[in-house]
Amino acid sequence: MKFNESLLAEGALYTDFYQLTMAQVYFQLGIHEKTSQFDYFFRSYPDYGLHQAGYCINAGMEWLLDWISEANFLSPEIDYLRTLKNHEGNPLFSNEFLGWLMDKSVATGLSIQAIPEGRVVHPNIPLAVVQGPLLFAQLIESSLLNHLNYQTLIATKAARIQESSLGQAILEFGLRRAQDRAATAGARAAIIGGAVGTSNTGASAILGYKPSGTHAHSLVQAIVAMGGSELDAFRAYAKSYPDDCTLLVDTYDTLESGVPNAIRVFEELKAKGHKPAGIRLDSGDLAYLSIQAARKLNDAGFEDVRIVLSNQIDELVIWQILTQIKEEASRYGVDPDHLIKRLAYGVGTRMITSSVDPALDGVYKLVAIKENGGWTPAIKISENPEKTLNPGHKHIWRLYDDRDKAIADVMSTDDENLCAMDEIHLHHPTDQTKHRILFCKELSRIEPLLEDIMKDGKVMCDLPSLEMIREKRQEDMQYLYPGVKRIMNPHHYHVSLTEKLWSLKQDLVKEYSDGIKDD
Amino acid sequence: MKFNESLLAEGALYTDFYQLTMAQVYFQLGIHEKTSQFDYFFRSYPDYGLHQAGYCINAGMEWLLDWISEANFLSPEIDYLRTLKNHEGNPLFSNEFLGWLMDKSVATGLSIQAIPEGRVVHPNIPLAVVQGPLLFAQLIESSLLNHLNYQTLIATKAARIQESSLGQAILEFGLRRAQDRAATAGARAAIIGGAVGTSNTGASAILGYKPSGTHAHSLVQAIVAMGGSELDAFRAYAKSYPDDCTLLVDTYDTLESGVPNAIRVFEELKAKGHKPAGIRLDSGDLAYLSIQAARKLNDAGFEDVRIVLSNQIDELVIWQILTQIKEEASRYGVDPDHLIKRLAYGVGTRMITSSVDPALDGVYKLVAIKENGGWTPAIKISENPEKTLNPGHKHIWRLYDDRDKAIADVMSTDDENLCAMDEIHLHHPTDQTKHRILFCKELSRIEPLLEDIMKDGKVMCDLPSLEMIREKRQEDMQYLYPGVKRIMNPHHYHVSLTEKLWSLKQDLVKEYSDGIKDD
Repeated sequence: MKFNESLLAEGALYTDFYQLTMAQVYFQLGIHEKTSQFDYFFRSYPDYGLHQAGYCINAGMEWLLDWISEANFLSPEIDYLRTLKNHEGNPLFSNEFLGWLMDKSVATGLSIQAIPEGRVVHPNIPLAVVQGPLLFAQLIESSLLNHLNYQTLIATKAARIQESSLGQAILEFGLRRAQDRAATAGARAAIIGGAVGTSNTGASAILGYKPSGTHAHSLVQAIVAMGGSELDAFRAYAKSYPDDCTLLVDTYDTLESGVPNAIRVFEELKAKGHKPAGIRLDSGDLAYLSIQAARKLNDAGFEDVRIVLSNQIDELVIWQILTQIKEEASRYGVDPDHLIKRLAYGVGTRMITSSVDPALDGVYKLVAIKENGGWTPAIKISENPEKTLNPGHKHIWRLYDDRDKAIADVMSTDDENLCAMDEIHLHHPTDQTKHRILFCKELSRIEPLLEDIMKDGKVMCDLPSLEMIREKRQEDMQYLYPGVKRIMNPHHYHVSLTEKLWSLKQDLVKEYSDGIKDD
Repeated sequence: MKFNESLLAEGALYTDFYQLTMAQVYFQLGIHEKTSQFDYFFRSYPDYGLHQAGYCINAGMEWLLDWISEANFLSPEIDYLRTLKNHEGNPLFSNEFLGWLMDKSVATGLSIQAIPEGRVVHPNIPLAVVQGPLLFAQLIESSLLNHLNYQTLIATKAARIQESSLGQAILEFGLRRAQDRAATAGARAAIIGGAVGTSNTGASAILGYKPSGTHAHSLVQAIVAMGGSELDAFRAYAKSYPDDCTLLVDTYDTLESGVPNAIRVFEELKAKGHKPAGIRLDSGDLAYLSIQAARKLNDAGFEDVRIVLSNQIDELVIWQILTQIKEEASRYGVDPDHLIKRLAYGVGTRMITSSVDPALDGVYKLVAIKENGGWTPAIKISENPEKTLNPGHKHIWRLYDDRDKAIADVMSTDDENLCAMDEIHLHHPTDQTKHRILFCKELSRIEPLLEDIMKDGKVMCDLPSLEMIREKRQEDMQYLYPGVKRIMNPHHYHVSLTEKLWSLKQDLVKEYSDGIKDD
């Protein structure tokens, strides 16, 4: 795809076609400007097969806002829509409709409230609430889901990997295995989730992070093919980067060739007053090899050079590596804690694609329409009770217990103020038998989660920097009980409806079900 | 990300940083213009957990060529690289290097041979061979892998889904769950693999396909919230699209409300001389509901309207649905074959992300360097024998048996011509014990697979249209034995090395291993 093609493909037309066919129906019914509300939420945490998440990290809003702000129906878009024909060969879209749409931004009239990027979030809680003219609030659905689902998915995976590393550096290395240009958004999301940088140079350039990376096997292979040796290749690299010299030691034989050659080059650097940076291991038994490499490096007096591990790393692999190091390192005279503190991880495929759960199941649902000045709740009833919507315009709250740990996210109707209550009656979102009462005096804090982001098509706040988003994540992670953060079998965080919202939902379900029977 | 940011992030800087650090080393050694060869190949078919692929569909080259043709080191790129500092705070890249790089295209001097898009391909066989100056042939690695891995992954998944549908239409519905803008490339790859269209409007616009899509639940919800009914919503949709009327029937109760209302609207359309198009089912037991919906539609005289199924569809789900229809339909007076022929499938998440194997393990490896006019093979030896490279400049052949079915893909050295041989001695790529002899008189055809695509930085052929690529896929699929195409436990297709190439590889491994010991 050429760049000018991406301008057409990924502007206002970056939407499922039914958004446009529905738009014309709304226009022809004269309801296209009715004020409507859509909620964005996901239904379940990512599940990676052998392990699963107990929380998510919210991400993607800034880039969604960029898209909304730049997506307009100009001549190229309208001209394309004009070419489309129905089964009879007549234009699918009327001149009146296309004339009305011409020169309009998809942001027309939209207001957005959202939970800020970097915050810990949970299923069924609206992470973004869009209000505005039915036509445009509907039209942005596909792009909103596309932007928010992916970055939240990857920020979540990165946070898990970062947690498993016990605070060591995680580097995002996924460009080559990313799904097309998701590489760029994925690098951003990984940094939000906890990576300290990325090998993706272009993403680094726009995110303001220093790109990371040293050399590949091909550097060694090329010099060997021209008659040189691995040692020659290492020396050439060290000459170009004497103060940033991390050497990849597994092109031929890690312990017999790579590590000894690296040590020779490090000695030469040291003699010239430079500080060697590290080695990288990219194959084999990474725990065993890192212990043996550490031993050789220590013996040579290089106890501080970093050991970077890469090759199919994820949170479970890091957990296994650390377990093995704790069990085996002492046997070889290597202090396991010292070794663990010098490790860093280059994480590629499994972070940037969130394997093996490569999609967040986020949805965007119509929940209310403004009629005569008030919100009329809209509902969709599913044969699967988990999928029946939580209707209407709502408030979202987070409750903290007396140890200042987050214990529940709560949805209420918009006329409820939890901060003013003595006790809060909570219902499980779908299971009728589960309800409980919380006494507010036993809570340390009640925090409203939604913030105003866009008003009438204009971004209305200074968006936080990437660094501020990262700090927000770190802060929110501190508020979680360790059981919720656990890599496998995490504790179940509570998501609830207030009594009043629960009753509204039951009434609507009953009303509509009775309606069908009466029909 | 704003559009002008994507210009910087996804142009020449769309690369892993080590490509640039290595580039400077090559420049400083004066070997940056040495002619080199890199092979692109994948090591294993996608494995989806319960099932696995027995072939892949090659895709992505045209869009890679677009990137290569447009990626240049101009002021924005060079200015960014100039800002980067080493650990001592000095510039990481020298003025000499950046001055040399300035105004150069990444395509400088590159030639590419490749297996054409749409063709069936197999592990370890080079799908693309890049020759050119070491610096640029190396530099494009990350973007090449990013483009080719993803589209090949998705075209493969789509081909499997298309096969499982027994020839019924597959529609690509994945924009909302795609990994960021992989949505656009994914739509293209899905069409190459067998989808007949996509709901992605922007992708349709640039690919020249008619976008597909009707309406969402929200159309019904919105009209109900304003005091109308599901029937009103269907009538409004039918009024706007009388000749293209496909109705989503599961917003409230599929069989009690959705299907009867659709039938009423279809009767009204028919009375006005229109032909109703179809219904869509998006939840519940899709096989059961399609049987019951078909029964009602048949009773009302609408035996030809299409039934579109969506919701977490993949090749295994289609297989299960068809099995259930074959077992149960007759019991309800519905002819299973007739029902199967009226089905179409809207396939979202599981095709566009290739869940649950969301990355093809394609790699790009230095295999030879031109020295004194001839190719010197380059090798990387891995502790895992599958990962030891097949060295040198090679030819790639496909052999067809006397029934004109493809039976093996073969790599040879570049001075071998399989067409001129009486017998071909073949080796398994890694297992020393497996070799066999094929007699050419028993073969119907020997086909060289690589074609010239780019010469000295210029695309040198008319690239095939998407329709021609689709035809190539259909043709190649006919040449596969059914066992290779099987959804689960497919037959193992043979990939082999000629005796001569095998011997070269063994010699190189021995030579390097001896070298280490002598050191």
